[in-house]
Amino acid sequence: MDNFCEKIFAGDVRASARLMRLVDDRTAGYEEYMKPVWKRAGRAHIIGITGAPGSGKSTMTDQLITRFRSEGKTVGVVAIDPTSPFSGGAILGDRIRMAGHSTDEGVFIRSVGTRGHLGGLSVSTMDITAVMDAMGKDVIIIETVGVGQDEVEIAMVADTCIVVTVPGMGDDIQAIKAGIFEIADIFIVNKADRDGAERTAGDLEMMLEITPRRSGWKVPVLRTAASSGEGIDEVVSVINAHKAFCGGNIKSARLEDRLLHVAYGVVREKIVREVFSEEKLRSLLREGADPYSAVDRLWHGEARGVGAAE
Amino acid sequence: MDNFCEKIFAGDVRASARLMRLVDDRTAGYEEYMKPVWKRAGRAHIIGITGAPGSGKSTMTDQLITRFRSEGKTVGVVAIDPTSPFSGGAILGDRIRMAGHSTDEGVFIRSVGTRGHLGGLSVSTMDITAVMDAMGKDVIIIETVGVGQDEVEIAMVADTCIVVTVPGMGDDIQAIKAGIFEIADIFIVNKADRDGAERTAGDLEMMLEITPRRSGWKVPVLRTAASSGEGIDEVVSVINAHKAFCGGNIKSARLEDRLLHVAYGVVREKIVREVFSEEKLRSLLREGADPYSAVDRLWHGEARGVGAAE
Repeated sequence: MDNFCEKIFAGDVRASARLMRLVDDRTAGYEEYMKPVWKRAGRAHIIGITGAPGSGKSTMTDQLITRFRSEGKTVGVVAIDPTSPFSGGAILGDRIRMAGHSTDEGVFIRSVGTRGHLGGLSVSTMDITAVMDAMGKDVIIIETVGVGQDEVEIAMVADTCIVVTVPGMGDDIQAIKAGIFEIADIFIVNKADRDGAERTAGDLEMMLEITPRRSGWKVPVLRTAASSGEGIDEVVSVINAHKAFCGGNIKSARLEDRLLHVAYGVVREKIVREVFSEEKLRSLLREGADPYSAVDRLWHGEARGVGAAE
Repeated sequence: MDNFCEKIFAGDVRASARLMRLVDDRTAGYEEYMKPVWKRAGRAHIIGITGAPGSGKSTMTDQLITRFRSEGKTVGVVAIDPTSPFSGGAILGDRIRMAGHSTDEGVFIRSVGTRGHLGGLSVSTMDITAVMDAMGKDVIIIETVGVGQDEVEIAMVADTCIVVTVPGMGDDIQAIKAGIFEIADIFIVNKADRDGAERTAGDLEMMLEITPRRSGWKVPVLRTAASSGEGIDEVVSVINAHKAFCGGNIKSARLEDRLLHVAYGVVREKIVREVFSEEKLRSLLREGADPYSAVDRLWHGEARGVGAAE
């Protein structure tokens, strides 16, 4: 195992990809490899990019990869594809625009699917981020489609959280503003050559002024046209400024949140696997138990053996 | 307790609202009330409405309430507001457009927030849906902002899952299509008077043809202009047709999935409260443990007492 992990720490692509597969499949014993990997993690600068469908997140990611590479930094990308709960696995992953980086050894791109009813950014996503971190990637970009819960989780995982919007998302966007506003470190109005860009940016700035912040960082609203590359230089320099700002306490607090989040995910998986299996729960429900009673029964019955079973 | 639950079963608004508060606050002992409530649930027709910000979900919900009321049905609405993980609670809830129904006793509207790192549609949302169900509401509409995980969870909760889109969401919507396609029972292209509506509807129909379905239901793509009420009659008649289609096996399978989902939520909460408290995990992480080792230690240590502690 030591040798295997040493290879990963040296940036070996094959060993790293192999561990990622073990992580994805939850192959028995993968946890033992993840322990030293997580010990090693915490060096990379982790950037979360989120926004509604159609906002141009993938193009933005693509542009950022190019800039970071030209700064001499190695880059990992974890692209989260929404997964069908019925067919399982990441079935889409049309990372076509990123294909230009596929021959660059300094870039490691991995698509992961979200999972079934355990919800949200899965532990395996975080595990894969940790593997890239342990490989020595300088920057890791986590890109996700979604508004709502996904963003909350990205904020917990990322050192720098970027929210991409486009002009004229409609008044309904009001409904998600407050949550996003406390989470984002950088706002981007993409497709800023479109009508309404200044109004959208102005609305964002106004909301930011009345939003309480966790830290003293002043959240900027940047304008870009990612498809032509306009404004991307500024995005990169603001990301670097935020990285500098986050050194020390903020960085360690976010790392601790990240570790906690992973730990809870690990607990959930372990519980489902070892005590509250779907099979056991379904059979109690079929007998007519309500969910609270079903959990009570397993908890007081089989659950007594937790830990001892191993 | 019997008397309290009897009041809820009789549709008493005060008793029901009180139980919802207990559920929201997770007041000790609320589970004992939820047991008979969940036993009673399963009668209402549960409709999930989801879609990106700006698609007009709230206006749609508003129109549906009016139509169902005119059919003589009682209606419950659970509006899920994204919550800030930092300030806690559902801080927005500008359900202004629904205010017209606030004096109608046949309509019960409740906003709920999503929760912290346990993720997704919270158990309390499901519990609140169950209370409305036990109250005897004929139709319950769950409205949520979001793409991705939220939709997956709605599909598990709802009998009929409606996805609202608008023309010209951009090519990025491709990235979420496959997941959504297997989940939706009804697609709506809202704001169908806008440019590109026919193209969006055509794209959806084309995708639907190549998507495997769980059941024999043919997913329709409807056109509406919710703000003027155009096309809403057809939406209602298709919802009623889907309800008729779902009788029997499909309805019970979805109910079982719903109960299972709640059971897992209950497990997660119990585990966090009784074994893996945030405090314990954070202190292990601060001592330098990686997440996997931290969980191992609590699992083999304190976890041994699971169940016995009660």
